[in-house]
Amino acid sequence: MKPEIIAWTDDGALRILDQTLLPRETVHLVIEDVDSLVEAIRSLRVRGAPLIGVTAAMGLAAAARRLERCGELDTGTKALVWLEGAARAVAGARPTAVNLRWAVDRVLRHAATELDGASNARLSEVLAGEAQVIWDEDAAMCAAIAASGAELIPAGSTVMTHCNTGRLATGGIGTALGIIYSAYEAGRVDRVLARETRPLDQGSRLTAWELHASGVPVTVLADSAAASVFRSGGVQIVVVGADRIAANGDVANKIGTYDLAVLARTHDVPFYVAAPRTTFDLTLASGDAIPIEERPSNELPTVDGVDVYNPAFDVTPAEFVTAIITDVGVACPPSRETIADLFENRK
Amino acid sequence: MKPEIIAWTDDGALRILDQTLLPRETVHLVIEDVDSLVEAIRSLRVRGAPLIGVTAAMGLAAAARRLERCGELDTGTKALVWLEGAARAVAGARPTAVNLRWAVDRVLRHAATELDGASNARLSEVLAGEAQVIWDEDAAMCAAIAASGAELIPAGSTVMTHCNTGRLATGGIGTALGIIYSAYEAGRVDRVLARETRPLDQGSRLTAWELHASGVPVTVLADSAAASVFRSGGVQIVVVGADRIAANGDVANKIGTYDLAVLARTHDVPFYVAAPRTTFDLTLASGDAIPIEERPSNELPTVDGVDVYNPAFDVTPAEFVTAIITDVGVACPPSRETIADLFENRK
Repeated sequence: MKPEIIAWTDDGALRILDQTLLPRETVHLVIEDVDSLVEAIRSLRVRGAPLIGVTAAMGLAAAARRLERCGELDTGTKALVWLEGAARAVAGARPTAVNLRWAVDRVLRHAATELDGASNARLSEVLAGEAQVIWDEDAAMCAAIAASGAELIPAGSTVMTHCNTGRLATGGIGTALGIIYSAYEAGRVDRVLARETRPLDQGSRLTAWELHASGVPVTVLADSAAASVFRSGGVQIVVVGADRIAANGDVANKIGTYDLAVLARTHDVPFYVAAPRTTFDLTLASGDAIPIEERPSNELPTVDGVDVYNPAFDVTPAEFVTAIITDVGVACPPSRETIADLFENRK
Repeated sequence: MKPEIIAWTDDGALRILDQTLLPRETVHLVIEDVDSLVEAIRSLRVRGAPLIGVTAAMGLAAAARRLERCGELDTGTKALVWLEGAARAVAGARPTAVNLRWAVDRVLRHAATELDGASNARLSEVLAGEAQVIWDEDAAMCAAIAASGAELIPAGSTVMTHCNTGRLATGGIGTALGIIYSAYEAGRVDRVLARETRPLDQGSRLTAWELHASGVPVTVLADSAAASVFRSGGVQIVVVGADRIAANGDVANKIGTYDLAVLARTHDVPFYVAAPRTTFDLTLASGDAIPIEERPSNELPTVDGVDVYNPAFDVTPAEFVTAIITDVGVACPPSRETIADLFENRK
């Protein structure tokens, strides 16, 4: 399966697969202005922390190209002023994933360097070039994570995961799901247990869709049914992704991740987090400082007038995590020290 | 709020509220044959272990009355032969809840006694009388559970519950929810946290509906969001119901109950189970012997062709339960001994 998840169109716009319609419909959207880009990110038409970063960079390039075609952004100064505002809007579309802010900051810095007074470079070309580099790097990071993670999966494993962390969430084969794909190809994975992942069902809609399309045996279960699988010994290992990781190893990820970590510890099952180095936010001492996005109450249908608590993420304390698998090595157990080591001794 | 949940019609049929359509629509169904009764129980149009027991008894009476009107069941022998077959069909509609089998056995025994050779009693009247006794007893059991449970709720509590265990699940004010109603009236409950309860959403559809209609403050959350509430100290006590309890105190209840019990223990929050004495199955040494119903995979929508694991219940080991609150006293902590005491020293 190689469904097109994100792509450049022939004339430099951004085309994305609208993930809100999966698995029923495969619809692609063309994006070439900032409002549509923000809407697509906020509405989760494109989601997954790494893929959001790639998409933001590509979308800014596409939006710049359209304005250039209309004759706007005709000086470097105008272009940079526009980019500052556009970047702020895009970075604010979702607050928790650090990759979004990281990718936007990166293209901003790159554009500021490339468009200094003497340059005749066009903003759209500068942005598109840097977006492509981010994309290529993300694919390479996925491959590196998969390489170091796959060997941690014991042969004959049934692996449980949460949300979607695969091709639909990254610029490559995925983070947690990349490890699972790689271990499956190496003959180590018998079956993947994909939790539904309420309220937006990324597990039953997206993870089931991409694993099934790739021929990996997958079983979908309700989030709350995971507990009885642990109790019956039906799962040997858990691998999940991350949206932001603090300097001490606390992990913000899709709501339900902490629940799964508690179950894994109670039943002595290893609990791995897979994420590229861009997911770490070393400016945050612990997970308590990670802002948690609360999403609209209508994602969780109930009786009219009833209060709804709908956080998109939770924080799993480092003590519940067996190891964090990154593209630059494994922090095991995750701690301020093992994480600092990863960043000091980059491969 | 006094929505009619179950009732006799003027001519002795059974009328039930179709709970599958709540909260959007309030539709009542008239039942006067065994096939409709089995379908209603199997499809969860009526659900909740105690209410299923009451409904089964009433439905058998209604079905008998209709056959009598057609001139069938005109001898005691014919009536008992029909009842045996009908009872078997109804008892098999759902395998886990013990109350269903218990109620059916009870009306069978009662009918066999009342319709012995010398009797001119009509089966429908015998069944209707016993069904009404079961209903009245269930309402009284709910009141007794609420009375002993409400005082265990500390003042100012936020209480978390799972599934629906209230007026929509019993012949009275409920088991776990009965305690919550009673504690709320006593000013001890600030708010109820109702987990969605996938895949059939009894929490967000039914518990939210009946609490909101009764003016009890309620917040709905995804099953997997409970964990972050525990971590932030946002819940002081958990109260859930039960579908079957083994002699050692292991509790079969709606899928997700064990998940909640693990979270409660990890965060030092008391975890109470509320159930009438009819929920105990003292013939079972432990929860391992409780049959767990697997429900149709289409309850959990996913990609065509993908495997689904959809158990309706899980088993929570007694060691995770702070106490079991019954109509004949409190087993604290639940064990073979404390449970045996309850049944030996009935109030």
